[in-house]
Amino acid sequence: MPSNDTIAAIATPAGVGGVAMVRMSGADALTIALKHLSVGSLQPHRAIHCRFADLDDGIATYYPRGYTGDPTVEFTCHGSLYVQQALLQALLDSGARLAEPGEFTRRAFLNGRLNLSQAEAVADLIDAVTPAQHRLAVSQLRGGYARQLAELRARLVELTALLELELDFSQEDVEFADRSELNALVHSLQHTVGSLTASFKTGQALKRGIAVAIVGRPNAGKSSLLNALLQDERAIVSDIPGTTRDTIEELLTLDGLTFRFIDTAGLRESADPIEALGLERSIKAAQQAHIILFVRNIADPFDNQATDDIASITARCDMSEKHLLVVHNKCDLPHQGTPQGLIVSAKEHLGIEEMKKTLAQVAKEYAGQNSGILLANARHYDALLRVADSLRHVAEGLEGGMPTDLVAVDLRDALYHLGTITGEVTGDEVLSTIFGRFCIGK
Amino acid sequence: MPSNDTIAAIATPAGVGGVAMVRMSGADALTIALKHLSVGSLQPHRAIHCRFADLDDGIATYYPRGYTGDPTVEFTCHGSLYVQQALLQALLDSGARLAEPGEFTRRAFLNGRLNLSQAEAVADLIDAVTPAQHRLAVSQLRGGYARQLAELRARLVELTALLELELDFSQEDVEFADRSELNALVHSLQHTVGSLTASFKTGQALKRGIAVAIVGRPNAGKSSLLNALLQDERAIVSDIPGTTRDTIEELLTLDGLTFRFIDTAGLRESADPIEALGLERSIKAAQQAHIILFVRNIADPFDNQATDDIASITARCDMSEKHLLVVHNKCDLPHQGTPQGLIVSAKEHLGIEEMKKTLAQVAKEYAGQNSGILLANARHYDALLRVADSLRHVAEGLEGGMPTDLVAVDLRDALYHLGTITGEVTGDEVLSTIFGRFCIGK
Repeated sequence: MPSNDTIAAIATPAGVGGVAMVRMSGADALTIALKHLSVGSLQPHRAIHCRFADLDDGIATYYPRGYTGDPTVEFTCHGSLYVQQALLQALLDSGARLAEPGEFTRRAFLNGRLNLSQAEAVADLIDAVTPAQHRLAVSQLRGGYARQLAELRARLVELTALLELELDFSQEDVEFADRSELNALVHSLQHTVGSLTASFKTGQALKRGIAVAIVGRPNAGKSSLLNALLQDERAIVSDIPGTTRDTIEELLTLDGLTFRFIDTAGLRESADPIEALGLERSIKAAQQAHIILFVRNIADPFDNQATDDIASITARCDMSEKHLLVVHNKCDLPHQGTPQGLIVSAKEHLGIEEMKKTLAQVAKEYAGQNSGILLANARHYDALLRVADSLRHVAEGLEGGMPTDLVAVDLRDALYHLGTITGEVTGDEVLSTIFGRFCIGK
Repeated sequence: MPSNDTIAAIATPAGVGGVAMVRMSGADALTIALKHLSVGSLQPHRAIHCRFADLDDGIATYYPRGYTGDPTVEFTCHGSLYVQQALLQALLDSGARLAEPGEFTRRAFLNGRLNLSQAEAVADLIDAVTPAQHRLAVSQLRGGYARQLAELRARLVELTALLELELDFSQEDVEFADRSELNALVHSLQHTVGSLTASFKTGQALKRGIAVAIVGRPNAGKSSLLNALLQDERAIVSDIPGTTRDTIEELLTLDGLTFRFIDTAGLRESADPIEALGLERSIKAAQQAHIILFVRNIADPFDNQATDDIASITARCDMSEKHLLVVHNKCDLPHQGTPQGLIVSAKEHLGIEEMKKTLAQVAKEYAGQNSGILLANARHYDALLRVADSLRHVAEGLEGGMPTDLVAVDLRDALYHLGTITGEVTGDEVLSTIFGRFCIGK
């Protein structure tokens, strides 16, 4: 049941700035706003310069059907901590309620202004830092992704209708639908769902960053190499906790793509003689990665185990979906021969630009040059796996001559799970999880 | 010379939020905006929902004479780092220039929309965290302060006119103006300027926080007392560097007033036997403070030097403008008698609320209950001291029968210094200093 009591929140980023915006939406938004403004009325979509509650001067704009679909008033005020808070407080004191995180977008969804997958895309859009993340979110918000889901749904509904038609006449023990036609339809649906789920890994890589493990023996110069990559980048660099307890991760943007460097290099060396070789940790890091950067010391005449190390690592990784790049570091020191792979000196910053180019190239290959529809949302992935599962049961049922009503149950399951993505069927708990990850004010 | 090339910046606080605003102002603002919008035109003051440069959907609003006085377009977009930056970059790529800090307000000043003291108040308004700081800034922006300066100026101009009239006829060796009337006028001006400069200390206290020194011997419980004050406060608490190398400061808001606790307590004890008593450091802290909180251990039967300590401290402070509060700490331990002053236990949180009330009360007394005009800006204070200086020379000149043309020079000096406050006379360097402390986008 959509409720439209009046909610308010600071919508702009937390902190001090030139200006800030307080947003209020709900049935009483206009009435509450006018209690505090130096003007007697607001015209729809008109930015009015006025005084707020003796607090500040600023701009008030009224939208009869704002972002939420409900009446909305937006106040642009000076961006001081005091003004933002005091203005919000004044609205709360006159009957508005503090909005929960994502509540404006939740209302837009409940009022039918966005479907659920679009609402989720709003959160992704807000979190986007790189062009690739932005494109993914925009595609989910307004592009082919929503169309593809709608088409999938239409075909599932068509299939269900065919089966249920047969079901309605089941008393007469008639098989109306042409089972081979049904089979073809199911297989085509399976194919579509399969392509979408297959794109998840790429979608995730674009959204979360392409994982690069920097591996190799201690003193091969892994840390220096990472520093050389991160240094003199105007890009966003930040430490994030690794996916395992033993790693930290650093983000770097190259050519519009985010790379997530899985860094074991900075960690203390173990006392365990085998572990001390760094091999176990290297393998773990490699297993999580899309790209493995194997670093060796080109100047160390005793480092003749590189081939063995690489073999040990790749033996324990699924290499069908990984790229291996060998980096010969310390080329500023005297060394013999010109091996294959990247030849760099992290210390002297030699070959680093070349390495960046190679990384970007491999990543583009990995991410796919085509701008096909990519699945990037883990919740959608999970739901589509369930759709695929139900479709498999449907296919098996049809092939095995299972009674129509039982096949129909599986088909309805498929429709149900697809419905959870766009929000046709969605419990309150799922909504709370989805909108809980939004920032306040959106 | 006001220039109106087109400038752009992100005007909302830095970071991620539900929405953000990019502001563009200057002669070409509308032309540049329309290159990127999915609509062919913008109507003045009308909030138009449209698409920006294939980047985002949002609201664009056009003001023929915006905050700066020049044509201005404001874009409200999704508050992602990517969208904000990419939108700004798109505008810069089409001919806008990145605005310098405070440049929008500087233009408002140059276009005569604000005087200089009002422009400075905008920065104070944005920095305001407490109601008292906010009120100070609003008063400077639109209240009695500007009026009082204007009136002061008018009276100075009147006096100058009277003197210069006499000067015009000086060849004829006539004294036109009634010198006693001139004297009265000068003294009244001196009085007004004197009240303003006298209010500076209070204004600064409200703006920067009322300075409280927590002093006393080691182990009197100074640190615990500060922690007890800061704890369970929802108020803004933060460490700021002290005004001397030996102190740190902590901010706390009580009853809408900011207190700046000068904390020597956490610093290492000195090896110097006299310094070890904490007395020297206590005295230094007390000299900087508006309020001295003298802390003693009520449970220490050997601590009978409290009276001596207080005498040593007060002997080296100008107590005419300070309040002393004696705090008997550790009342949870066995002790004798019930001394005058505040009796507390920082450890058991006894009497702390009472102490806060007393502090707030003393501070209100200190800050003055009346809502008179307060001078809070150090630049204005400096200028008014020079005005006072020039007026003193004028008064001495008139009394000493100095030639009118020499008196007039001092009077013009007074006018000049007053003019630097509101910006009638101001060099580029002063403007750069003033607007350089603004945030970008304002």
